[in-house]
Amino acid sequence: MNSDDQPSKAAPMRPMEQALAQAKAAVDRGEVPVGAVILDPQGKVIAAAGNQTLADHDPTAHAEILVIKAACAAIGSERLIDCDLYVTLEPCPMCAAAISLARIRRLYYGAPDEKSGGVDHGPRIYAQSSCHHRPEVYGGISEQPAAALLRFFFAARRDKS
Amino acid sequence: MNSDDQPSKAAPMRPMEQALAQAKAAVDRGEVPVGAVILDPQGKVIAAAGNQTLADHDPTAHAEILVIKAACAAIGSERLIDCDLYVTLEPCPMCAAAISLARIRRLYYGAPDEKSGGVDHGPRIYAQSSCHHRPEVYGGISEQPAAALLRFFFAARRDKS
Repeated sequence: MNSDDQPSKAAPMRPMEQALAQAKAAVDRGEVPVGAVILDPQGKVIAAAGNQTLADHDPTAHAEILVIKAACAAIGSERLIDCDLYVTLEPCPMCAAAISLARIRRLYYGAPDEKSGGVDHGPRIYAQSSCHHRPEVYGGISEQPAAALLRFFFAARRDKS
Repeated sequence: MNSDDQPSKAAPMRPMEQALAQAKAAVDRGEVPVGAVILDPQGKVIAAAGNQTLADHDPTAHAEILVIKAACAAIGSERLIDCDLYVTLEPCPMCAAAISLARIRRLYYGAPDEKSGGVDHGPRIYAQSSCHHRPEVYGGISEQPAAALLRFFFAARRDKS
């Protein structure tokens, strides 16, 4: 990001670093390490969250869903017009559809998810003719650390079992 | 339903009536009228919810998401093994994917949703090879009153605008 007033497309590293920090905090809690942040139209981070499905006993508590709920609460609207979302992993179909419903402007994601992704894999939610709002999508942002964190988590879990 | 111990497939009217009651309560609040309930493996309703996206300023606050969260909280698990979900409208892609993540056994829905549905329309979430859990799906349960309630809501909204 060149300045606080010019976020997003040009140099989206700084918000993704914040999303990675959320993913790291998730792995410290024993959760699948995925983190997300949302920026308002001025480029200010208005919400940040990490995956917490286990802690909340909630299969919908993915980082993207939590950060959308938090951002909506922050601005008092169910639509996040001109807001951008950064997430360390390609969103699953549930989260991809939620990002559309929230009217997110741009989606930046880190590692692709061939097995469970819903943006560039699986149902490719935004490619459906019935999708009513399609964010601009930029994949592979800080892909290496995001993927490394996931590999670490799953290797450690296999090691325990 | 023949008895409290034999719910679901045979005669799924009674739970759908409860889902319709949730949809009616939603329309009274000015929300899109969709309602849902979840039954535990013994056929007992453990959660009920209606759509409240406007009241909560939350685009994810669809009836299905709310009822999944409530049922998970009730049983203290992020997986609703052998539980069944009844909803008055075909779930959208977000909710269809959430139902899969929650490991719901059977999905009963009322009216089909050609425009925004994600089960038998649009991305057909459960038909994707990447879908890791597919509920049994029974559509068209109490379709007429569910569809009539939606028609009433959208006609009244058009009339106001």
